[in-house]
Amino acid sequence: MTRYRLVIEYDGTGFVGWQRQTNGTSIQELLERAVRGFCGEELTAFAAGRTDAGVHALGQVAHIDIERETDAETVRDALNAHLRPAPVVVLAAEAVSDDFHARFSATGRAYLYRILNRRAPPALARDRAWHVAVPLDADAMHDAARALVGRHDFTSFRASLCQAKSPVKTLSSLTVGRDGEEILIRARARSFLHHQVRNMVGTLKLVGEGKWTRGDVTAALAAKDRGAAGPTAPACGLYLTEVVYPAVTN
Amino acid sequence: MTRYRLVIEYDGTGFVGWQRQTNGTSIQELLERAVRGFCGEELTAFAAGRTDAGVHALGQVAHIDIERETDAETVRDALNAHLRPAPVVVLAAEAVSDDFHARFSATGRAYLYRILNRRAPPALARDRAWHVAVPLDADAMHDAARALVGRHDFTSFRASLCQAKSPVKTLSSLTVGRDGEEILIRARARSFLHHQVRNMVGTLKLVGEGKWTRGDVTAALAAKDRGAAGPTAPACGLYLTEVVYPAVTN
Repeated sequence: MTRYRLVIEYDGTGFVGWQRQTNGTSIQELLERAVRGFCGEELTAFAAGRTDAGVHALGQVAHIDIERETDAETVRDALNAHLRPAPVVVLAAEAVSDDFHARFSATGRAYLYRILNRRAPPALARDRAWHVAVPLDADAMHDAARALVGRHDFTSFRASLCQAKSPVKTLSSLTVGRDGEEILIRARARSFLHHQVRNMVGTLKLVGEGKWTRGDVTAALAAKDRGAAGPTAPACGLYLTEVVYPAVTN
Repeated sequence: MTRYRLVIEYDGTGFVGWQRQTNGTSIQELLERAVRGFCGEELTAFAAGRTDAGVHALGQVAHIDIERETDAETVRDALNAHLRPAPVVVLAAEAVSDDFHARFSATGRAYLYRILNRRAPPALARDRAWHVAVPLDADAMHDAARALVGRHDFTSFRASLCQAKSPVKTLSSLTVGRDGEEILIRARARSFLHHQVRNMVGTLKLVGEGKWTRGDVTAALAAKDRGAAGPTAPACGLYLTEVVYPAVTN
């Protein structure tokens, strides 16, 4: 048996998210089906981030255990052949040691959130960005974002269904910048609570449109109450961009 | 009657192109239908570039004549409401003088061509870029592109169906650069022959993979024979990004 680490890109539109569900198709299921198609083996694929329905990935990481004697390039190409035509592709495959775990070995996760900030609705960015028609002040959002960086109890930004043992997380960075018509929000942490990035984005959007100040964000964080922060931003703007592991894992 | 200039973005996937055809839905038809929905008027919309099936636009320009007393912002928002849910949106509308013509007043057109240059097929860039799995040398492509810049007889890069009176065009600029996994090709000219950008891209790709030299591109141009240049690159990678008009048009 060889364990393979896979880096995966997907368009999350129309899927129920990474994890298998009864109400639709998951990325996990498609990947496991591709493995069956390739080598006939039944297995469970484990991912670093269990992205929600509609959330995209540019660099999701998963691991799978394969009995058949093969090599990493063959695994990558064969899985891509079997994943077709689903918008899910394996960017890279690498043989790793048996103690590597996509989720538990990860020491960092990075997300990007895209807001299309213009009057006209999206055509090319449909399902790929949150459309906000009112002008947003990216500088004010960036300044307010600094109030969330660091080690905090993020209860105010945590989904009610979140299964994490503790609401205390260390947000390594949270930046907001404008690139033409888009507002790009980037977040990094060892791990995030369920909906944490989308809840932070929904809150920063209130700052961007001038309804909230940085002080309101600080107060919302201190309240430790989900009702004190802003609404959850839509899934379609969120991208899992990178998962970080210690340098030596294999 | 007031003439409005419209700047339009669209995802060309699944459409027969800008111009009305009998075999499918065109952008022109959707726009004219949206005008009917807005004010009940029957008209013909004229565009700067008659993009082919599958070609996208970030800044197509069209003009329409509207009898109803209204204003530019209302035209933009009402057309967007009536275009929904098609991936076609009006980014801007502006009242212009009656002698403005989207096609004949244009003094420049700019196109972007995206190649996704990596082993794995596209997931998020599906239908939005040409997937080329073999590594391409962007610097060699850029150098060879310089052989095409300037005033030339572009017969070798002209579709057999091209309706232009003359094959002589002045290519103002043609640049090739790498942005991560993508090769971005940008072309500017007063006007282009039918398929000219896609035929130039298909030829430069041969240089990128080392099959052709810059000298081969020069020879292909000099041959004035479509068979002497490379194949036509797929429509999905092409974007009409901008149409230029003289500073005073209204």
